[in-house]
Amino acid sequence: MTPTLQLSIDLLRLPSITPDNSNCLQLIADYLDKLGFECEFMHFGDPSDTGKNAQVNNLYAKKRGSNPTAPHLCFAGHTDVVPVGDESLWTYPPFSATIADGKLWGRGAADMKTAIACFVVACEQFIAKNPNHKGDISLLITADEEGVAINGTHKVVQALAQRGEQMNYCLVGEPSSTNTLGDVIKNGRRGSLNAKLTVTGKQGHIAYPHLAINPMHALAPALAELVATAWDTGNEYFPATSMQISNINSGTGATNVIAQDAQVLFNFRYCTENTADSLKAKTHEIFDKHFNNSKASYQIDWSLSGEPFLTKKGQFVDAVVSAIKQVTGTTAQLSTSGGTSDGRFIAPIMNAEVVELGVKNATIHQIDECVAIDDLENLTKIYEQILSQLIA
Amino acid sequence: MTPTLQLSIDLLRLPSITPDNSNCLQLIADYLDKLGFECEFMHFGDPSDTGKNAQVNNLYAKKRGSNPTAPHLCFAGHTDVVPVGDESLWTYPPFSATIADGKLWGRGAADMKTAIACFVVACEQFIAKNPNHKGDISLLITADEEGVAINGTHKVVQALAQRGEQMNYCLVGEPSSTNTLGDVIKNGRRGSLNAKLTVTGKQGHIAYPHLAINPMHALAPALAELVATAWDTGNEYFPATSMQISNINSGTGATNVIAQDAQVLFNFRYCTENTADSLKAKTHEIFDKHFNNSKASYQIDWSLSGEPFLTKKGQFVDAVVSAIKQVTGTTAQLSTSGGTSDGRFIAPIMNAEVVELGVKNATIHQIDECVAIDDLENLTKIYEQILSQLIA
Ligand SMILES: [Zn+2]
Ligand SMILES: [Zn+2]
Repeated sequence: MTPTLQLSIDLLRLPSITPDNSNCLQLIADYLDKLGFECEFMHFGDPSDTGKNAQVNNLYAKKRGSNPTAPHLCFAGHTDVVPVGDESLWTYPPFSATIADGKLWGRGAADMKTAIACFVVACEQFIAKNPNHKGDISLLITADEEGVAINGTHKVVQALAQRGEQMNYCLVGEPSSTNTLGDVIKNGRRGSLNAKLTVTGKQGHIAYPHLAINPMHALAPALAELVATAWDTGNEYFPATSMQISNINSGTGATNVIAQDAQVLFNFRYCTENTADSLKAKTHEIFDKHFNNSKASYQIDWSLSGEPFLTKKGQFVDAVVSAIKQVTGTTAQLSTSGGTSDGRFIAPIMNAEVVELGVKNATIHQIDECVAIDDLENLTKIYEQILSQLIA
Repeated sequence: MTPTLQLSIDLLRLPSITPDNSNCLQLIADYLDKLGFECEFMHFGDPSDTGKNAQVNNLYAKKRGSNPTAPHLCFAGHTDVVPVGDESLWTYPPFSATIADGKLWGRGAADMKTAIACFVVACEQFIAKNPNHKGDISLLITADEEGVAINGTHKVVQALAQRGEQMNYCLVGEPSSTNTLGDVIKNGRRGSLNAKLTVTGKQGHIAYPHLAINPMHALAPALAELVATAWDTGNEYFPATSMQISNINSGTGATNVIAQDAQVLFNFRYCTENTADSLKAKTHEIFDKHFNNSKASYQIDWSLSGEPFLTKKGQFVDAVVSAIKQVTGTTAQLSTSGGTSDGRFIAPIMNAEVVELGVKNATIHQIDECVAIDDLENLTKIYEQILSQLIA
């Protein structure tokens, strides 16, 4: 039993369904404490709230290097996991951390308790070999990444920035690998911008349309243009910005009534060729044009989930790519696809370069989530190699 | 107390909320029986059904004329009324048939028990003066016009047509007047065609649109073209055909999921420049064009509420217009606007000319429905004058 496997099993046996931490953070802190890390628990939110502002515990653990001008590398991760669904469908109980067929099975095995174990053990081994390492090492571990993510990493980095904490590189342990360990790393994520559109007309009987204002008739050509618009063509790092309508609702159910209003939800996943502001402006331009001569009116409530971030090729990306190459022989592909991660908070607020590297993501959020045990050992070596290259 | 007012009061005191007839039909039959009409009750539907196929009673009363080749004029009406709503909001109890301020108050006072009373008394007076009238007179009174209208007039005229009954003119007693009695008559009604559109795509995560097929994105340009299409420009008798979207629904409520499908309900109110088939064909042409190169598919379930009908200017329209002019001095305007009426069944199935003339419609389906007592006396005279001109 290697230390990585042992710590992985210990973490997987704690049923830390988001936003519970089930003692995971304490377990990690205890381990890091022995390695010389200063461990700080950072609580945000209201202990009496059971909704979006529920209290969340976070761990910020830091070990200072010998050279104050050397870079600071932070590892970011989360101990919370998504619910297990129908437990009877699992081959092994989801919190049993069963070893079988060369794999470790359980909720969080891929997303992403094991990556935390890999990094902690990588630190242990790195520090043993480099007791006087130059740069700072830290871990920012939240218990709320899978949930509303309000009192997790976002609040932690705000607090760190406020007290003048500096960070150069942030390695996020999210499961980035697709077919083999390290084949894909994420050097950025698209931004996500939500729009809630309301079109207001005037209700009426369908036989007397001149006495009503049909919100759908005002909306249809604007939606058609919205759908047809090419927002950008992407760039070297990002695919083109995508706009998708997710919901539309209008009408009373009756077939003879023109509705008073219509609601549409749509979302932008956008690259660094646009900003939230540029997308808002272009959207309003389209709607203003179509509603200018309309008796109907429209309103959009915008909500920004995260600006895009991008870590261009450079020292950090190079170190990650070369560490993977050395350990596994694999040449990592850079990718910015997929959903959002806590990198969206760390990159802009800490002004840090962010790269995501973790195990294979094939089974995440699924029944029978698992990870190859060999991958855990290799990922530990890769993480240690990254530390060696950047802060030794 | 005139006979028209007395019969109106008798009918208004029977709480015949659709599709109940509350003895209204028997009351009318008893009156007509004494005038020499043959009264036939025609039941359709299932006595044990409480839904759409509930049993409905209808009255078909006929008095033959002396000349078999003279025209047959039928009066069509309904004794059922819409619910009264909050009874406490009525100035006078809705089934009290109170006389106050020169008006008769109650549910059905305008729509349309009083018109039945006017026509019955008009027959009485006409027959008294013309005992050997040449043409046939009939009354087709249903107890289900305000409801689903399945086992009412539609079934009656189908049965009449099947047994070879012929009809030349049909005077529908629906409240056609707007500001003064007889200012508007309806010489046609638009058709009504309902479409239930389903667009099927493929559900997926909004961050991976290439793995999903967004039904709304396929739909938007087709809807825009549907809304922008001019179906016709109307004609001498009809306004242009109108297409209105009444309902649209798509989405799971989640902001990060592309929906599997989208549903849209839309309706055509169409004039005689189009047919149900021409509108269907043109709609499918639009959708086929937009969905031809789309991975999404669409399906439309059509349901025809009624083909349009039109009674062009001629002997019948002239008789109605001149009768109004003689009695009230008003020059009636021809109109084909508004919702549907049972004329949609009578015109095509009996191949009859249909004109609608009744009292003022300002208070129909409302709290404090009422009719001017003077209008009842004048409408009785107008109806008698029409009988004189057409079948004396
Ligand atoms: Zn994760
Ligand atoms: Zn009516």
